[in-house]
Parts: sequence; structure tokens; C-alpha cells
Amino acid sequence: MTAQANDLVRADLDRLLPIFEAKYLLPFQSGEAVRLAEAMQYSLEAGGKRVRPVLCMLAAEAIGGRAEAALSCAMALEFIHTYSLIHDDLPAMDDDDLRRGKPTNHVVFGEGQAILAGDGLLTEAFQVIAADTSLSAERRIEAVAVLAEAAGWRGMVGGQSLDLLGEALTRAGKPHDLEHLQVIHRLKTGALLRASVELGAVAAAATCAQRQALRKAGSLLGLAFQIQDDILDATSSEEEMGKRVGKDEGKGKITYPVLLGLEGARRALNETTERALCQLQSLPNPSSLTAWARFLAQRGN
Amino acid sequence: MTAQANDLVRADLDRLLPIFEAKYLLPFQSGEAVRLAEAMQYSLEAGGKRVRPVLCMLAAEAIGGRAEAALSCAMALEFIHTYSLIHDDLPAMDDDDLRRGKPTNHVVFGEGQAILAGDGLLTEAFQVIAADTSLSAERRIEAVAVLAEAAGWRGMVGGQSLDLLGEALTRAGKPHDLEHLQVIHRLKTGALLRASVELGAVAAAATCAQRQALRKAGSLLGLAFQIQDDILDATSSEEEMGKRVGKDEGKGKITYPVLLGLEGARRALNETTERALCQLQSLPNPSSLTAWARFLAQRGN
Repeated sequence: MTAQANDLVRADLDRLLPIFEAKYLLPFQSGEAVRLAEAMQYSLEAGGKRVRPVLCMLAAEAIGGRAEAALSCAMALEFIHTYSLIHDDLPAMDDDDLRRGKPTNHVVFGEGQAILAGDGLLTEAFQVIAADTSLSAERRIEAVAVLAEAAGWRGMVGGQSLDLLGEALTRAGKPHDLEHLQVIHRLKTGALLRASVELGAVAAAATCAQRQALRKAGSLLGLAFQIQDDILDATSSEEEMGKRVGKDEGKGKITYPVLLGLEGARRALNETTERALCQLQSLPNPSSLTAWARFLAQRGN
Repeated sequence: MTAQANDLVRADLDRLLPIFEAKYLLPFQSGEAVRLAEAMQYSLEAGGKRVRPVLCMLAAEAIGGRAEAALSCAMALEFIHTYSLIHDDLPAMDDDDLRRGKPTNHVVFGEGQAILAGDGLLTEAFQVIAADTSLSAERRIEAVAVLAEAAGWRGMVGGQSLDLLGEALTRAGKPHDLEHLQVIHRLKTGALLRASVELGAVAAAATCAQRQALRKAGSLLGLAFQIQDDILDATSSEEEMGKRVGKDEGKGKITYPVLLGLEGARRALNETTERALCQLQSLPNPSSLTAWARFLAQRGN
């Protein structure tokens, strides 16, 4: 990545994150279920790269809209992403005790409250879109449809289910192939990243062609993101990642480096990213989204 | 309940349940995450009284609308109710191995898949409303808002959190009072039952006054339902209920019979039901909903 593109990413983050976090970090301050609100807030505040909200707001800008138009969708995406991390970290799933450098939700609040905190965040994602009267009812219900499809059994949750079953297969010595790995990633990580870009399009009233281009770009970015995630898990230190690393291989999890080798995985990453960027060229204002897409493919954590 | 009212309840069930179940029982037959779809389907098909969908469709009829207008809301309600049962039954929550006379979801599919089946059903509830193009975008997004508010941290999930914490308080010998019990029930059971009635109003385009009356009636019916649930847990056999009974007291759970005595709880049940029925009197076509409300308060399981 050029120094210029890097500056653009930094400038966009400095501009967009305060808009996002001003609304995002304060939603669960009242209500009767105080302990639950604390548990939800704990994971929202744990940080992270805010990849999905930023992609969503940049997609709105890429078609000439305002980032603020996509704010409720951006919040909903991060609620869904955060709930999925809480549930994935549970002992019955990936059994992680460290996330973004902090103890995971169930370690702090107990398993029962952590399950409920995830349920609460998932539900609130739809609430925050429904309550955004700055968007027409048509755009809001379209956003709900896109998000529910991407997050549900045909998308993210389905991918997590296959991934869990895959670990069981691996332990039983059953073979895997690249096609199966791609299905899991398309559902588990890809669907919500694709939706991030598509929701920016929906919120900013994209034309059909613009939405189609962003949808395709989002799918490819989702795949690129996952390949880089696998590469990082195989090559980074725990300190850099803020979570346990090398655990994919330790658990016999199928990953791109395992299937394609490290160099093969890097080639696949570059090729996928370039295909995504091609899709963005026809849009009126793609430079920030393009820079961010390159940044994601080259990120160090 | 008079024999005539009983006949009306039976006739309405015979009329409404086939409409509901024809759509409801078949949604997860395809897709890539086959095992997850099986897990979701398993709990949907496990039966139950379909209280929420029937209340929703009868509320639509009570204001002169058609039951079919409320079908997607009815499905969404039962998806949410079913997901909440799957998660409540988990070892980290109420730790139940029997539900509706069948092994609970996590006993059959494992804890990880059961958590995901719940997540999938919760997400699909919003999808099924968003996809119902027979309702205007305005009504669909209003339905999403009502459902998310009732099911989320300000409603059902918040109530379950307080209930879990309450069990811990009881084990620690801390005192409870009626007010605290009512908050838990208003959130945990009441919010979704109120939403059932309110969603029928939203789907069938109720006037403001009609919606207000149904909302109040729904709140009171939710409370009555919970009082009767507590009474049944204290007095019924496991065979009648299809789940473990007497466990509330065994776990030191606060219930209406514990706080008010069995006779006091029965008086509270009757009084609450009558107040709910008062709210329905002004509606154009309340007889079926009225009969069903009486039936619920007198049900044997």
C-alpha cells in the first residue's frame, strides 16, 4: 500500500469513527436489566477495528451519499458482529477466554448472562434500524431483510454451524477440500461483510447497478478478509492479535494456509482483493472504500 | 368457562392452526447448513400450544381484520418463543433436558448447535416479517420495532437475565418482594405476549385507540398467563405438563403461589383476566379473543 493510501485510511477513520462511536457506545445505559446492559456494553466497548461499520459508511459515500445516512445500519452490523463473538467464544463453541486483549464476556459475566447479552445485541440490531426515522420505511425494511439474511441460518449462523461440525470431522480424521472451506467462509465471515457494503448502498439509495457492484465487491472483500485472518492466525504473535493465535491449526481447523500453503494463500488474497477493487471502479466516489479494502488485505491484526 | 366458550376456542383452533402450521412447519428444508436447519426444525415441530400466534391472529380478527394478514407476525412470534425456550433450557441457564415431552434441543444436537439454532430462529423472525410483501413497508417496519422491543434487552431477554440473577439471590438467602417478581414476569413472559396481541393490531391496520386497547389487554393477559404458569408448576404432575414441574420451588424460585399463597394467586389470576377482558369490549369483533383469554387463564397445562 502506498503512503498516500495509508494516509487516506487514517483520515477516513479519524473522520468516521467519532461519528460512529458517539452513538454506538452509549445505547445501554438505562433499563431494568442492569447487569445484562453492562454485559452488552462490555463487549461493545472492547474495541476492535470497526471494520463492518466503516465499510458500511464508506459504501454509502462511494455512491455519493452521506456516511451519516448509514449510521443505524453501521451500528446494527457491529451489534451483530459483537453478539457473534460473544456466542463464538462460549465454552460450547470455540471456548476462548481472551478477545481483543480482554477477558471474554462469559469469563466476566458468566455463561448464562453472556448468552443473553448476545441475544440482546442481535435483537437490538433490528431495533436500531427500525427506529431510524431518517430513513424511509422502504429502506429500513430492506435493510432488515439484507441483515437478517446475512446474519441468519443462510449466512453467518449457518457458517458457524458448519465450522463447528467441521472441527468434529477433522477430529474424526475426515478429509476436507477447498470448496467446503469456501462455503464455510462465505457464510461465516463473508455474508456479514458483504451485507456491510450492501447496507451502505441500501441506506444511501443506490441504483440497482451500484448495489449490484457493491454486493459483488462485498462478497470478494469478505473472502479476502478471511484469507488474511487465516494467514495472520498462522503467522502472528498473541500480542499483535489480542487473542489466542495458532489455535486454528492446534484444533485441526481447515484454513487457507493449511490447504494452499502460506504463499498460495497470499496469492489468493491478492487476487481476490484486486477482483473486489475492479467492482468499485464504476462508482462515483470509490477512493476511500478502495483504500480501505487494500488496507484490510494488508492489515497486521 | 362455559361449554359454549370452550366450543368457540376449539373451533377457532381448528380454523387457525392449519393456516399457521402449513407455513410455519416447513421453512428450513433447504440451505447449506443442513444440521443447523434440522436443529431449528426440531424445536419448531416439538408442538406447544401456539399461544402467541393464535393470540396474534385473533387480535387481527378482533379489530375486523383477517387472520391471514397477521400470519408472518404469528410465525415470527413463535420463532422468537421457540428460540427463547432453546436458550433457556441450556445447561448455563435453566438446565432442562425435557421440553414439551421431548428431549431438549441441546440434548439432541449438542450445546453449540443449540445456541446457534436459537440464534438462527431469532434472526429468522425478522426475516419472515421483512419478506412479507402483503404488508406495506410501514406496517412491516412497525412490526419489527414492536417485536424487537418486546424480545430484546428491554423485554424478554432482560427478564430472563433478572430471573437468572434472582435465582442466585435466592440461593444467597436474599429476600424478594411482589414488585420485583412482577418486573421479571412483565419482561420475561409479559412483553412477548403483549407484543403478540399488538402485532395482530399492527398487521391488520388498527386505529390508535384499538391498538392501545389491545396493547393493554395484551399486558394483562401476559401477567395472567404467568400467574397460571406458576400455579400449574406448583400443582400439576409432570405427565400433564410435558416438562419437569415443582422445580420452581425446588430451585428457590420466587413465584406467585410462594408469595401470595395458592388461593391468593388464583384471586390475582381471575382479577387480572377480567381487567384484560374489559379492554376488549370496545373492539368490533372480540368474542374469539375473549374466549381464548378465558381459556388460557383456566388451562390445565
